[in-house]
Amino acid sequence: MSEQIYVGVDLGGTAIKVGICDAEGKLMHTYEGPTEVPLGPETVINNIEKYVRHIVEESPYDWEQVAGIGTGVAGFTNVKEGIVILAPNVGFKDVPIRSILEERLGKPIKIDNDANVAALGEAWSGAGAGIDHCVCYTLGTGVGGGIIIGGKIVQGFAGLAGELGHMSVIPDLEAIQCGCGQMGCLETVSSATGIIRMAQDAVDRGDRTSLSLVEKLTAKDVIDAAKAGDEVAARIVSRAAFYLGKSMAAIAVTLNPERFIIGGGVSKAGEFLFEQIRETFAKLAPEPVKQGVTIVSAELGNDAGMIGAAGLFLRS
Amino acid sequence: MSEQIYVGVDLGGTAIKVGICDAEGKLMHTYEGPTEVPLGPETVINNIEKYVRHIVEESPYDWEQVAGIGTGVAGFTNVKEGIVILAPNVGFKDVPIRSILEERLGKPIKIDNDANVAALGEAWSGAGAGIDHCVCYTLGTGVGGGIIIGGKIVQGFAGLAGELGHMSVIPDLEAIQCGCGQMGCLETVSSATGIIRMAQDAVDRGDRTSLSLVEKLTAKDVIDAAKAGDEVAARIVSRAAFYLGKSMAAIAVTLNPERFIIGGGVSKAGEFLFEQIRETFAKLAPEPVKQGVTIVSAELGNDAGMIGAAGLFLRS
Repeated sequence: MSEQIYVGVDLGGTAIKVGICDAEGKLMHTYEGPTEVPLGPETVINNIEKYVRHIVEESPYDWEQVAGIGTGVAGFTNVKEGIVILAPNVGFKDVPIRSILEERLGKPIKIDNDANVAALGEAWSGAGAGIDHCVCYTLGTGVGGGIIIGGKIVQGFAGLAGELGHMSVIPDLEAIQCGCGQMGCLETVSSATGIIRMAQDAVDRGDRTSLSLVEKLTAKDVIDAAKAGDEVAARIVSRAAFYLGKSMAAIAVTLNPERFIIGGGVSKAGEFLFEQIRETFAKLAPEPVKQGVTIVSAELGNDAGMIGAAGLFLRS
Repeated sequence: MSEQIYVGVDLGGTAIKVGICDAEGKLMHTYEGPTEVPLGPETVINNIEKYVRHIVEESPYDWEQVAGIGTGVAGFTNVKEGIVILAPNVGFKDVPIRSILEERLGKPIKIDNDANVAALGEAWSGAGAGIDHCVCYTLGTGVGGGIIIGGKIVQGFAGLAGELGHMSVIPDLEAIQCGCGQMGCLETVSSATGIIRMAQDAVDRGDRTSLSLVEKLTAKDVIDAAKAGDEVAARIVSRAAFYLGKSMAAIAVTLNPERFIIGGGVSKAGEFLFEQIRETFAKLAPEPVKQGVTIVSAELGNDAGMIGAAGLFLRS
């Protein structure tokens, strides 16, 4: 029999990225086209179908070689039923995407949310390749996560495992309310949004910082200022790093993973951020569960979604 | 073929409990004999062999029906290699118990630590029967734990998953050092030892409490006093309950389990304790991950170890 290939679809609000992977998680061909959210779910689904057919046609592979098509969606998904429950960025609400795509494409379809799929991609052929137990953080607008045990995504009872941004790690005295309604969630300090919020607070209260000269603050501005020696900015980045390390210590005693993988925009701060996370983790995790544990940067960047989506067939 | 049976061994410091289970986790026969730790590991292993052969002989089953023998040990175990690394209560250090017992008994042997095995027993045929994702706490001298995902024990990278007693959940301002060296571990307040320690502190500093009249404080004394309306005792029990609920909120966002199961001596405090745990969990866990989640008492008591050990063959 000829080699089987797996198609991964990363369904985002702006673009649909489609990739072809082999059985080892190697991304061999990619294609990207507009999602066209304003035209409605029907158009978005048509586009997925079109781009998937297109990439296979343009590739050296035959349609018969496609063993399955996985799709990662930024939103709440019901993995078992194959339904996108709510994905505001894509304009989907209760869309039974699996059955629709299965009928149109005549191939097995699997879906999952973007954080899980990105985690699986990294675990499969990125920073977690060869590692059975890893926990992935995505530091972006929020803090997302994905838990990989025995090489597979942990879904949880209601498909909500890996909501690491909502672990309450901040002491009451300094906690603020999170968008989720709870107090002291990790996301309130370790996301890009959290970093910008802390910086804006500092500027507003008149702290002496170079950030007060910046027109529209971004997390990158804060990180760059911190690296350049701005003390106020450095404290903010340290705080983001500290609570990440603290949450990892809690996860270490629960799951004893071998590797923590951190991706997303904020992770681009690089070693400046990672060293502080590792320091906190080393300080707060009990001796046995931190032995041999590594905290590393994600490697696949924006490809993680496509690769992980393709991996849903081999690793879930 | 005749029905297969599974033997579970609960290897403790005082007694070795042996049970026969069917493939559904029903405990059908039990036998208990002394461990005889002072006579050395050789004698302890002889006893295991003797008791296992004895219970099968006395049962209506034939030796041929024994599909496997599982053993739970209070200590550090290397599950993959089948070695008890360190079990002070049993006097074992680097004992390759699996290969020894396999040679002597001519049956497949599996081992795991007592907390994992008890969790598996509860998940299989106790308070977690029919539940795929559950997290078990054992509140005894320390706080032990076991994580069951997809009906199976999560081991972690180094076999240390489920060390829930060492999750740091207590704010710095009120944290004390744990035996593990870290500050603020759950175990420092929610174990029997923690409850006794808090009560002794209260007595020593002259708090007005009925506990000052008790000769040698036990956790039961503190719980009974709390139930009887002693305010100092009530605060201590509330504190134990609060941090349990807080740790569950952290686990809920990480793993999204369906059920938390609490066993061990302290759990005998019953609804008085459970209501406070549920209240805290409901307050601290974000809405979606707490929906449908239950917090219940363990059901199997001391049988959990035997049943879970037998279950290692079907659920690991």
